[in-house]
Amino acid sequence: MIRKGRLFTPGPTQLLPSAQLAMAAASMHHRTAEFRALYSKVLADLKTFVGTSSDVILFTASGTGAMEAAVSNLTSPGDQVLVVSAGKFGERWESLAKAYGCQVETVRSDYGQTVTPQQVREKLKPSHAVLYMQASESSTGARHDVQGIAALLKGTSTLLVVDAITGLGTTRFDVDGWGVDVIIGGSQKAVMIPPGLAYCAVSERAWQRMEAAKNPRYYFDLRKERKNGAKGESSYTPSTALVAALAAAFDYLREQGGGDLAAGRDVLIDNAETAAAMTRAAVEALGLKLFSAAAPGAALTAITSPAGIDSGDIVKAFRNRFGAVVANGQGEMKGQIFRIAHLGYYDYLDTIAIIGALEHVLAGTGRKVELGSAVTAAQKVYAQASKSAPGAK
Amino acid sequence: MIRKGRLFTPGPTQLLPSAQLAMAAASMHHRTAEFRALYSKVLADLKTFVGTSSDVILFTASGTGAMEAAVSNLTSPGDQVLVVSAGKFGERWESLAKAYGCQVETVRSDYGQTVTPQQVREKLKPSHAVLYMQASESSTGARHDVQGIAALLKGTSTLLVVDAITGLGTTRFDVDGWGVDVIIGGSQKAVMIPPGLAYCAVSERAWQRMEAAKNPRYYFDLRKERKNGAKGESSYTPSTALVAALAAAFDYLREQGGGDLAAGRDVLIDNAETAAAMTRAAVEALGLKLFSAAAPGAALTAITSPAGIDSGDIVKAFRNRFGAVVANGQGEMKGQIFRIAHLGYYDYLDTIAIIGALEHVLAGTGRKVELGSAVTAAQKVYAQASKSAPGAK
Repeated sequence: MIRKGRLFTPGPTQLLPSAQLAMAAASMHHRTAEFRALYSKVLADLKTFVGTSSDVILFTASGTGAMEAAVSNLTSPGDQVLVVSAGKFGERWESLAKAYGCQVETVRSDYGQTVTPQQVREKLKPSHAVLYMQASESSTGARHDVQGIAALLKGTSTLLVVDAITGLGTTRFDVDGWGVDVIIGGSQKAVMIPPGLAYCAVSERAWQRMEAAKNPRYYFDLRKERKNGAKGESSYTPSTALVAALAAAFDYLREQGGGDLAAGRDVLIDNAETAAAMTRAAVEALGLKLFSAAAPGAALTAITSPAGIDSGDIVKAFRNRFGAVVANGQGEMKGQIFRIAHLGYYDYLDTIAIIGALEHVLAGTGRKVELGSAVTAAQKVYAQASKSAPGAK
Repeated sequence: MIRKGRLFTPGPTQLLPSAQLAMAAASMHHRTAEFRALYSKVLADLKTFVGTSSDVILFTASGTGAMEAAVSNLTSPGDQVLVVSAGKFGERWESLAKAYGCQVETVRSDYGQTVTPQQVREKLKPSHAVLYMQASESSTGARHDVQGIAALLKGTSTLLVVDAITGLGTTRFDVDGWGVDVIIGGSQKAVMIPPGLAYCAVSERAWQRMEAAKNPRYYFDLRKERKNGAKGESSYTPSTALVAALAAAFDYLREQGGGDLAAGRDVLIDNAETAAAMTRAAVEALGLKLFSAAAPGAALTAITSPAGIDSGDIVKAFRNRFGAVVANGQGEMKGQIFRIAHLGYYDYLDTIAIIGALEHVLAGTGRKVELGSAVTAAQKVYAQASKSAPGAK
């Protein structure tokens, strides 16, 4: 059969066609009334999507750029910071904070595990200027307890910075209510457009902290971007095509929510939850192991490769036989796990189809597979979820 | 008449349709053999386009991101640096170097002027770690003498960093021969694609300097990008859609050069030179003043607004009457000048058409204009240029 190329990777994710077309058609100068109106709309939509009353800042960069902003703008050399780490992106916080001269302490769990609020409580000190964590560790699929950790920081002067690059659009957050000071997202994730834009919402407490933070920053200067953002502008030439794509993606989500963007975002979260639950049921039916069984998130499902099988071979088989790109493990998990994404533009057909393909791929490794068993398990989850969904018939 | 929206701004510039389509169609994961092959090809094409044997580094950022990289990777706090400044982008070098704790000295000329090698010679000291300059000052249209200034630095330990964001594809450089240590470009300029990618070529001498440079950098870490670039990868998720667009743009330029990308780049430079010469002849025929008369570049032509006329009104008239977006002055030149771009995807029809529109716009300000006079002057320049061009019939 022919093989269409399809991404099942936790970023870049599948693209929204109307956003692709908006991107191709966008031919705008960034210092025009037309673009200022578009940019202001996108910044306002980002606030709604994140679910915050704080100002949101947009950078032309990948998500790591916004992570860097949350270090360089909030710290001075020598500051003590606490990092929650149980995967590759937790380690990125450590590297970033060290690059900016911070004294880094880490609350660490093994890859595939989560870090509990109790573990954080034992390490947290009043001298910690900032706590850096992930909402969803993209390298393992584990979801960390942002609410529980945020509660520990209430009444302290430790700022809470959350990389929610694969968390936004897959997890419910009460950003302001919980006291998240900075929450970070990226364009190639649940918002269904290509990589190249990063964004973050910043609390008043964090804006205050910046006044005294002494680390150098220029391209990622949050205060400068906030000032220009209020006028519908970016400090430097923005990725105009991607801004147009993002506007189209929010229009789609608004439509999904019956005219309400926040409701559309919740549809997206429920969608990812259902796709993840279907995939977990399939994994179980096949006798495979969930890598992050303790706290599996909805952004992606990480699956432990069967004993004796390099997960790279599974990734290759998906691509060569079906044109489907699933993700290998990253860093030390390469060869050990493979990852299937649910965040963003994946529907029932995508989900059931990749599970069908998984059965053939596993059978191809010599494992005994009853064809249809995983698909059926996933269908039952779907049937149950749609029965309980509002508006189900 | 209907009004098509068209950019005549010195970035973003007019888009190459095949690049727009490539961008919309690009649906790739960045850690695949397919993308590594594309990325490696684009990095190799960038070397050819820049005309250097040095490694080229690509960032998902606007041009300012690569400018920041040339400061944070090459300096330590307290370093003495020399900045050549005669416009808004020269001032950006000053701000950037200050943000990273450098001691900044400046060789300054007025907006619209150039800075001569003689002026630089008088300020240059052996203690200057780096000299930062523009090849083409986008805010004024002036071209600085990169070759002349590079010659002064020969045999010194002062590195030469050139922002050629509007210089590349509009100016001939002998990057390696002249001893340019870092030369910087951006995607939304002569390469005819939207903003969102910045690139720079880095000399061996500059790579050496980085070993000891103590300023913090992470997202813009050049050495890390070089290491990953050698494997066809970027350190962080790149703007895959724009990388695909850039590949399409280089394919177009290769075709223009009869299969030779360097020749295609030279076609692009000659094209900009002709469009600029046509525009200058039109300006003269209309009795207007070139703002950068001493050293007008081919990237854009800056025109002084007639006495008593705010250039913003001229910009508005171009847009409202003809759908054409020309640029106002920036910073202190706002209201004083307007700027028409030639870099990238502008042909004879674009050039003659905007000159025709200029006549109507000027007539609309109450100025006496003989319709057709500027167009004719420009046509004569074109006729002369095409007579002397290789292959002319």
